[in-house]
Amino acid sequence: MKTIAILGSTGSIGTQALDLVRRNPEKFSVSVLSCGRRIERLKEQIEEFHPRMVVVQREEDAATLAMEYPKLQVEYGDKGLIAAAESSCDLVLNSLVGIRGMIPTYYALRAGNDIAFANKETLVAGGELIMRTSEETGRKLLPVDSEHSAIFQCLQQNSGQAVRRILLTASGGPFRGYTLEQLRGVTLDQALRHPKWDMGNKITIDSATMMNKGLEIIEAKWLFDVDPDRIQVVVHPQSIVHSAVEYWDGSVLAQMGNPDMRIPISYAFSWPERLENDFKPLDLFAEGTLTFERPDPEVFKTLRLARQACSQGGTYPAALNGANEVLVQMFLEKKIGFTDIQDTIEKVLEVHKPENHLTLEGILEADRKAREAAVRLLSKN
Amino acid sequence: MKTIAILGSTGSIGTQALDLVRRNPEKFSVSVLSCGRRIERLKEQIEEFHPRMVVVQREEDAATLAMEYPKLQVEYGDKGLIAAAESSCDLVLNSLVGIRGMIPTYYALRAGNDIAFANKETLVAGGELIMRTSEETGRKLLPVDSEHSAIFQCLQQNSGQAVRRILLTASGGPFRGYTLEQLRGVTLDQALRHPKWDMGNKITIDSATMMNKGLEIIEAKWLFDVDPDRIQVVVHPQSIVHSAVEYWDGSVLAQMGNPDMRIPISYAFSWPERLENDFKPLDLFAEGTLTFERPDPEVFKTLRLARQACSQGGTYPAALNGANEVLVQMFLEKKIGFTDIQDTIEKVLEVHKPENHLTLEGILEADRKAREAAVRLLSKN
Repeated sequence: MKTIAILGSTGSIGTQALDLVRRNPEKFSVSVLSCGRRIERLKEQIEEFHPRMVVVQREEDAATLAMEYPKLQVEYGDKGLIAAAESSCDLVLNSLVGIRGMIPTYYALRAGNDIAFANKETLVAGGELIMRTSEETGRKLLPVDSEHSAIFQCLQQNSGQAVRRILLTASGGPFRGYTLEQLRGVTLDQALRHPKWDMGNKITIDSATMMNKGLEIIEAKWLFDVDPDRIQVVVHPQSIVHSAVEYWDGSVLAQMGNPDMRIPISYAFSWPERLENDFKPLDLFAEGTLTFERPDPEVFKTLRLARQACSQGGTYPAALNGANEVLVQMFLEKKIGFTDIQDTIEKVLEVHKPENHLTLEGILEADRKAREAAVRLLSKN
Repeated sequence: MKTIAILGSTGSIGTQALDLVRRNPEKFSVSVLSCGRRIERLKEQIEEFHPRMVVVQREEDAATLAMEYPKLQVEYGDKGLIAAAESSCDLVLNSLVGIRGMIPTYYALRAGNDIAFANKETLVAGGELIMRTSEETGRKLLPVDSEHSAIFQCLQQNSGQAVRRILLTASGGPFRGYTLEQLRGVTLDQALRHPKWDMGNKITIDSATMMNKGLEIIEAKWLFDVDPDRIQVVVHPQSIVHSAVEYWDGSVLAQMGNPDMRIPISYAFSWPERLENDFKPLDLFAEGTLTFERPDPEVFKTLRLARQACSQGGTYPAALNGANEVLVQMFLEKKIGFTDIQDTIEKVLEVHKPENHLTLEGILEADRKAREAAVRLLSKN
């Protein structure tokens, strides 16, 4: 029996993780649940999964819950997330959205907990710090992103030295094939309509701008210790091949499956074993045709910007990520246009003053400054 | 430095294996070369690779070679192949064609040699005997068939128990999509024109009849200990996905690559490592589209016959294989029509009297009787 602390339990990844726990009560139990403000949803989860501890965002919600569940340990805010990350368990699932996820990842590793993480912003902004911490503590980082889970599966028992390239697949999002001109006119509703994956709002917009793939390049660089020049983005609209690894002997291993996030979550939960699932199996005959094409970096500038920030190093990736987070939020609030996201990130990187002292505080400071710069640069237009 | 004994060195697999040795002189050397009657080709190989021993088919060729190369050990016939199989080396590559390959495989394992094998007829006819011998001696059977190499690669560090299905891909051959009526009229020239792979004549005809895939189902059953019901044939005309393994968690691992037999040969030679090759890399963008469809067992009866022989067990698969070998030979000699192959195999299996005592001699006897039955049944028409 593995006890799992789930950070972000009411989101898309969190609820799918709980579905796996529900289907495997003899294998997994939940020690911690955490959410932002979806308190009613959280209450249902408390009654079904009986955690020891819950974490919410606001103090007032914590107070209400403490009254209602007197035996439950109730915490709130970033302090609460750190307590959850440090709590005694077999695995912490970090499915928080954005840079906020970096802090509990860091403390979980420090406290000796393995981490399954869907929170890619952690490695984008804090890759060097987090990988160093993982090495120092000997704790594992198990990827939940479908692409990184695919790469991780294709790398098993193969020496990293023998890797020639990583083929990072991308659905291409709802605006695949658009010109820059067309991209300028898209609406929020269009951007939220992802053709293949049902995900949270932030990642759905990141998919539409292709920044999601840019962030994943940086994530893969840290997680698999591979130079971004050797990571090739392959647009594959059917989202059946979740990524692949080309070895130096000419052999390519690919991981395929239906676009169902429960599969990579299941692999992270059960690794190095595989869990027996009864999800709908992949039907290649029904799928019939798989296609592969190059992304257009002239239209989707985010790919180029992510590679650039990654090669500049230091706090550049944190600035890229921070600017992206605030700009996506503004787009979701209909305050800016779709291409303002990539255009403003480009400007933020131009004015960014890098730091190479990559502590937790230093990274969070770079994130904060990039957000401010993004807002400032937009108001100048 | 690995020393390799190559049985069938002038054939398609043999010459590609020697190309790998040529490219990696610091990693591999050749201790034995063997061929049938292509003596001039063999002499070139002797002068380039300096083996200790050579084996040819006929005594008179052996005598000539012994005169010409007085320091070389020269053997001939089946006795010679057994001596080669038993010789001291790190690996025996068995790229003989047909049931004749079974005998040296058996003796190589008995003598304590690992085997890389392209000779699928060995496992089709003698699967139980050969796997038992491999278990008893602890010697390895490394597959060279591109499909089985793919499955082998996808299985690394994954428990066999977790395998739900094997997806065995097939190009579909030159007659994919044909009706039975159309299939009846095809010529030898058409059958020899394989759309994707450049191979020897026997396997090229087996691909055209799809018996090759039938034999591979039986080969996979023995090699990976998986029930044929869980082996699904997937027609994939581009021959990029060489096969795949579906795990019980819903994840499918696939091995891909250009249709270049040097890749699986290289993996068998270097396993568990991978050799660095400079073959043309797979270009998914140039390939663009991969398609998958069901085979038609009403047209290509060979698939059904192979499954049937496999489930009947005993000497049935040896009879299937023996009949197929003689019939393909007759088709190559333009003595029979294309669909006579599958029609006659069906009749041979009907009259086959099975043996369950699966010794080397028993299997060879079943093979011989099936060949006789095939010829007899044809002459009755």
